Amino acid sequence: MPSAHYPARVNTLAIPLGLDAVAVGFGGLAGALAARRRGFDIVGVLFLAVIGGLGGALLRDLLLQVPVRALTSPWLLPSAFIGGALVAPLLKVVGPMRFRRDAAFTLLDAISLAMYSTLGTDRAMTAGLPPISCLFVGTVAGVGGALIRDVLINEQPEHFKPGSFYVLAAIPGCIAYFVLRTLELPVLVSALISISVVIAIRMSSWSLDWQTGRRPSRPSRSARP
Amino acid sequence: MPSAHYPARVNTLAIPLGLDAVAVGFGGLAGALAARRRGFDIVGVLFLAVIGGLGGALLRDLLLQVPVRALTSPWLLPSAFIGGALVAPLLKVVGPMRFRRDAAFTLLDAISLAMYSTLGTDRAMTAGLPPISCLFVGTVAGVGGALIRDVLINEQPEHFKPGSFYVLAAIPGCIAYFVLRTLELPVLVSALISISVVIAIRMSSWSLDWQTGRRPSRPSRSARP
Amino acid sequence: MPSAHYPARVNTLAIPLGLDAVAVGFGGLAGALAARRRGFDIVGVLFLAVIGGLGGALLRDLLLQVPVRALTSPWLLPSAFIGGALVAPLLKVVGPMRFRRDAAFTLLDAISLAMYSTLGTDRAMTAGLPPISCLFVGTVAGVGGALIRDVLINEQPEHFKPGSFYVLAAIPGCIAYFVLRTLELPVLVSALISISVVIAIRMSSWSLDWQTGRRPSRPSRSARP
Repeated sequence: MPSAHYPARVNTLAIPLGLDAVAVGFGGLAGALAARRRGFDIVGVLFLAVIGGLGGALLRDLLLQVPVRALTSPWLLPSAFIGGALVAPLLKVVGPMRFRRDAAFTLLDAISLAMYSTLGTDRAMTAGLPPISCLFVGTVAGVGGALIRDVLINEQPEHFKPGSFYVLAAIPGCIAYFVLRTLELPVLVSALISISVVIAIRMSSWSLDWQTGRRPSRPSRSARP
Repeated sequence: MPSAHYPARVNTLAIPLGLDAVAVGFGGLAGALAARRRGFDIVGVLFLAVIGGLGGALLRDLLLQVPVRALTSPWLLPSAFIGGALVAPLLKVVGPMRFRRDAAFTLLDAISLAMYSTLGTDRAMTAGLPPISCLFVGTVAGVGGALIRDVLINEQPEHFKPGSFYVLAAIPGCIAYFVLRTLELPVLVSALISISVVIAIRMSSWSLDWQTGRRPSRPSRSARP
Repeated sequence: MPSAHYPARVNTLAIPLGLDAVAVGFGGLAGALAARRRGFDIVGVLFLAVIGGLGGALLRDLLLQVPVRALTSPWLLPSAFIGGALVAPLLKVVGPMRFRRDAAFTLLDAISLAMYSTLGTDRAMTAGLPPISCLFVGTVAGVGGALIRDVLINEQPEHFKPGSFYVLAAIPGCIAYFVLRTLELPVLVSALISISVVIAIRMSSWSLDWQTGRRPSRPSRSARP
């Protein structure tokens, strides 16, 4: 059924493409920060910036079988590079303290997660997918960039580790956007609420040390070496 | 050449879509079981259920460039979740013995492997691909879900380990389906034979401890703790 | 914009498809060699040959949303298998010395990297992508096969390790091809120059031990907290 109006759906983005560029920039910055924290060189930093920035958008558009805007638009790739290049001044501002670097990374990653989850849900609704598929595409678009990034640097993606509110932060945001848009709230209002929901849940869970499953008995965060 | 009849081939599935839903359910259950065996929490279990259930179908449809039915159909995603949710009663039935858990996982994984290999070959034939590509797509669809699942939990996929009849179990099934369909046997008969072939080879190799390559010197299976 | 002339762009390959088959063969041989060096059995060797050979081509065509020639052409898959099968005579010729095996692998991998980078840039130009996207697709096509190969055998892809001129060898080749073609030099001349550039940089960096970033043997790193 959706394939019937394939050509039509391509040009009806509810959320304008400019927001994609911003999401890509945040993802790129988070990717570059992840690379720096592992001691990668400039090539690794830029490569992870591109993957962290564009990964979710690539996955999303491939799954939806719409034109891959990360490639057809001349703005998204440079946006990932700019995000990646901002890692140097950011690290200057943040300083060398481990906690502040962790906080900066988690926040940037949460912003990228939030924007991509919202954008993914929006694009899937535009493509006319069933509701559950819209939530799935939104979640995959949200966590996809970080997932590919973690797989490529051979780390177990933290989204599966007990205690992480990562996927669980994305899903309520996708649901919020879907419901608000179904209630015909304006696009940007819905997007803003959805993005706020994801960031709020992700950052609360991180700073309050929420646990999704059984908690492995261990010393508290501050007591860890 | 296949792109010429692209719109036509989309609606001519030999094997009905319902079988996809069953395959997705088994894959989802195997994925959930893999997650539980590694101590993942509920989010990890459901995420691996979705990946194990839909991974092969997603890969297959992306490779064939046909509509991604895992998303366009409203039944496949819920089927993966239902499969994943069945892990709790299944573990009750199977009990805590390690051998019985291994056997249950291997059998469910084999059923998913068998169904996806057969479905993948069928869809590739429908798409008019050359014979060798049909076998390739069938094999990739069969092992794809387990492959993505293993990569995401950062385990070396067991399909490459010496001694594992995994890819080697899928290929004869794909060949069987291709030959039987070329001989114009009925679809469901061909599918049933092909699925049986894969399950028989996979489970025989597992229970009889067949080896595909040099055997690393080690105590026999029963002697292991 | 590119989606408007989608049907047209499919049949206008500048570089003939035969070169794809050669690239696939070299990639397959490099993949098989990687599998042999890790002690995989015959199934693992052939599977990595297929992945190493076709991975870059699959990724490229999926990203460009053109027909996946690795599957629609009846020649590319056999070419990967033939490349993989050549690993046995190759290892005979190279002999058991570790250095010679390393050199053989690096050279074959460099040839595959060079051909795929060039082909990827060419196909992206044919698809009418913006210049920066052409360089991106060329680079991804070049490193993609090796990247998927390394992820599947659960090794940290070496392209991110400090000191490796891998991505940095592909990019100048992509730029060279793009510039030469924009200057309207003949296709095969441009391709030959671009391929030579990549191989020269990659092999020089390997044999002369060039470093892209900080050199890990530096004592200061280990002294850092």
